[in-house]
Amino acid sequence: MTDDNYISLFDSTLRDGAQTQGVDFTAADKIAISKALDCLGLDYVEGGWPGSNPTDDAFFAELPELENARMVAFGMTRRPGRSAANDPGLAALVNAKVPVVCMVGKASDFHVEVVLGIERDENLAMIRESTAHLAAHKDEVLFDAEHFFDGYISDPGYAMDCLKAAHEAGARWIVLCDTNGGTLPDQIGRIVEKVTAEIPGNHIAIHCHNDTENAVANSLVAVKAGARQIQGALNGLGERCGNANLVSLIPTLVLKTPWKIGVSEAGLRELTRVSRLLDERLNRAPNRHAAYVGDSAFAHKGGLHAAAVEKDSRTYEHVDPALVGNRRHIVVSDQAGRSSILARFRDLDIDVDVADDRLSALIETVKAREFEGYAYDGAEASFELLARRALGEVPRYFKLSRFRIMDDRRWNARGELVTESEATVTIVAGGAPRMEVATGNGPVNALDNAIRKALLPLYPQLEDMRLVDYKVRILTPQSGTAAITRVMIESADQAGRRWTTVGVSPNIIDASFNALHDGITWKLMQEGAEVPGPAS
Amino acid sequence: MTDDNYISLFDSTLRDGAQTQGVDFTAADKIAISKALDCLGLDYVEGGWPGSNPTDDAFFAELPELENARMVAFGMTRRPGRSAANDPGLAALVNAKVPVVCMVGKASDFHVEVVLGIERDENLAMIRESTAHLAAHKDEVLFDAEHFFDGYISDPGYAMDCLKAAHEAGARWIVLCDTNGGTLPDQIGRIVEKVTAEIPGNHIAIHCHNDTENAVANSLVAVKAGARQIQGALNGLGERCGNANLVSLIPTLVLKTPWKIGVSEAGLRELTRVSRLLDERLNRAPNRHAAYVGDSAFAHKGGLHAAAVEKDSRTYEHVDPALVGNRRHIVVSDQAGRSSILARFRDLDIDVDVADDRLSALIETVKAREFEGYAYDGAEASFELLARRALGEVPRYFKLSRFRIMDDRRWNARGELVTESEATVTIVAGGAPRMEVATGNGPVNALDNAIRKALLPLYPQLEDMRLVDYKVRILTPQSGTAAITRVMIESADQAGRRWTTVGVSPNIIDASFNALHDGITWKLMQEGAEVPGPAS
Repeated sequence: MTDDNYISLFDSTLRDGAQTQGVDFTAADKIAISKALDCLGLDYVEGGWPGSNPTDDAFFAELPELENARMVAFGMTRRPGRSAANDPGLAALVNAKVPVVCMVGKASDFHVEVVLGIERDENLAMIRESTAHLAAHKDEVLFDAEHFFDGYISDPGYAMDCLKAAHEAGARWIVLCDTNGGTLPDQIGRIVEKVTAEIPGNHIAIHCHNDTENAVANSLVAVKAGARQIQGALNGLGERCGNANLVSLIPTLVLKTPWKIGVSEAGLRELTRVSRLLDERLNRAPNRHAAYVGDSAFAHKGGLHAAAVEKDSRTYEHVDPALVGNRRHIVVSDQAGRSSILARFRDLDIDVDVADDRLSALIETVKAREFEGYAYDGAEASFELLARRALGEVPRYFKLSRFRIMDDRRWNARGELVTESEATVTIVAGGAPRMEVATGNGPVNALDNAIRKALLPLYPQLEDMRLVDYKVRILTPQSGTAAITRVMIESADQAGRRWTTVGVSPNIIDASFNALHDGITWKLMQEGAEVPGPAS
Repeated sequence: MTDDNYISLFDSTLRDGAQTQGVDFTAADKIAISKALDCLGLDYVEGGWPGSNPTDDAFFAELPELENARMVAFGMTRRPGRSAANDPGLAALVNAKVPVVCMVGKASDFHVEVVLGIERDENLAMIRESTAHLAAHKDEVLFDAEHFFDGYISDPGYAMDCLKAAHEAGARWIVLCDTNGGTLPDQIGRIVEKVTAEIPGNHIAIHCHNDTENAVANSLVAVKAGARQIQGALNGLGERCGNANLVSLIPTLVLKTPWKIGVSEAGLRELTRVSRLLDERLNRAPNRHAAYVGDSAFAHKGGLHAAAVEKDSRTYEHVDPALVGNRRHIVVSDQAGRSSILARFRDLDIDVDVADDRLSALIETVKAREFEGYAYDGAEASFELLARRALGEVPRYFKLSRFRIMDDRRWNARGELVTESEATVTIVAGGAPRMEVATGNGPVNALDNAIRKALLPLYPQLEDMRLVDYKVRILTPQSGTAAITRVMIESADQAGRRWTTVGVSPNIIDASFNALHDGITWKLMQEGAEVPGPAS
């Protein structure tokens, strides 16, 4: 860190990110995510706020071993009117088995006077005494200057006094927080320049929020103005609109700026995996459009674009997707021509000659299907099946010869009005018809359950497959009863695969069945399942 | 636009946004979105690429009337070796019934030489001649300088020559495109300054992509460097990582910068609604964390922050959420709920006293329903019924005592495999139970048909009502069979009313029935229908 161009990275996914609406990390989540952050090559991992909740207590009681990153505990300055030595919050920080602590305090006259209702000097004393107390017990103390930018705009002298109090009392880093996230890049740049004129930039960190969608740019402009640490969170997790997104900042810093960071080339290649691991832990669908790591970040839909990328990837790609562990997607749609379908084939490892007649037939089929209402853009698994079927590569694992579904609303024995769905199916697989019945929380769920019940003895690979999303769209509502229904089904399995299939029909149940059929077939093909013989 | 500080806004949601993976606009979508963009107060709406696909052809054949915005058709420069007058692409632009056209061409030596494989001078001639040809037929021509920033970095002289060719041939705007989205804010600022030193800034537009999560900042820095038009898309829609997000830029420009734009205070208050309308049209869940308009953008997760915001909203809010039509969410207090519910009452002309006990009961009901998964934001008719029910104003028009639905797949007489849905219902209205049966193209359609068949003799007002959209979302897919289904149904009648209702249940048929029931009830209430006496 002696290099003047070195920017240290401080991750707050597990602390500030835990403020996100709907996010509740378990201690096991925190351990897995800490290790992933460490493997990327980050400098600091803020684990949480010991003493504030049972999860964080459990996590700090059994901290994971990290190879590169230093684990940080978060807390706040002493309370007004207390001594630092007698403050229970500071004691929790001292007792945390970590080398580094980050302590938040106010750096805004408005917050000191109106919100806390204390004297300005008492706030300075709180910062000074708390910093000195912690610095005596820890390798490094960070002072998190809450509301610094709003405070500086309102009263620059007082805001600077707050920073200096911490710096002079021994804080390793002074963190400039844009707590409400409303400051714009040119203001951030101007103010950080003023700060680094008085306190050396290698003691200044930047902590931005995304309330104007400028958190990434604000972090970069602060570094240009002299700050030497960036704080943020994976996938921009965090309260309201989130923190600065480290997943976007890391590749930009490595690939596009003169600054150096602790993330190696190998670490960078883990980025897509780590970003998706966080979503997986939080049970959230990854943002397809995320910079660098999104599933669509290197997707090409237009025919012209797709053709140009095939010719030279620099034409429509600002970096090589492999550098961040992502990959190119050539999207199939009615805008795509022969070259993009061929490129998509290469992605799927399908070997076919340009002149192959089956290719022309497939393009015609795609067009005809899209005219019917199929959308393969978004249903990659159905496209793969369509392509492999055109080449005769997809086994006929099963046939649904008939089904009947009943949805009944009636009074149950306890006098409650309940609705039940029940499906009866006849499946032909391996020669013999198999009839099964199952219930579900709707007709499609009941149908799905009955089909699986029939197939599971033949294909035990289906055990870990589940339906994770179900979307319906009516395509031509203006034409009344002639409306076409398009169903998209997303499935997942325990190997971490997620795949989407599409079905179209005038009847919603039929459309759902078509999508289910593709979903099951795709899974069986991935598993290399064999069609049972007539005797089974 | 004579004001030096005026920044015009050019929306490309319907053209560049249509390149998004998973996005397929219908012509009806395009009309609805154009009108919403117009009502915000944008200057230009790019409707699509006439001649490139049937949807855009249908849209340009029957363009909506706009009050403020100018409709733009997109196309490209003439092909190499053709004359401008004989180029079919340019002819399609000339023939489009719009006052403004935007024409893309290359502004990068690499793209001209390697991708197109033509002479540099031929590319300049293509730009010059195409611009002049279109300028002779249209009020305004925009030249979309594709790959300008990469081109400028590679060969500044040639990139500038491309811009000048268009400018001198009469282009009203020269659009500087960061096509691959890889350029960082400080580079954008430096290069736009060089451009505006040679071509007046009031002829320069900026068009950024979000591949490094800097599209918003890049647009702002370009304006600071002299550009006077920003191009972008609603919700940052667009290929790969999307275009610059106009929904984030608009409030920043109005509330935080010295620049002026065409969006009035009233237009700004429509922003949240318009942003969600787009997601609704695309059947996508809105991004809760979106700057300004996200559901969580002004959410405070309780504790210190929530208490401080109650004391003074400036403590943790960078702007007042009402300015952008959004609202604060505070988990620990119902203050926000009460005032926004009162505001919605005023919208519906419901007269109720602030101190009315029924108001508190309604707030509790709304909270409980939202906890179950109801969403009244996009289902105003269901909210109105809920409110009027709390005030005892809604008659019980009918009760569905039981139903049974069967979906059957079987072979018909012509040897085809067909699926049929059939519903039997028992309705109680006016005392006597009425049993009816009907078919449909799915279980919900059959149920809807049977209910109407039973109700029509009692309520002939239902004759002209029809279901125009049906959307399904699974709310907690992670919990497997415990998933909750939310159904939204849009209905319409011949009086031109359109209304949306919502139903939630673990069973999709039940959820659909709840939404149908609200839809029918709302219609009957609008018509002032009377509940028939027991004798009828």
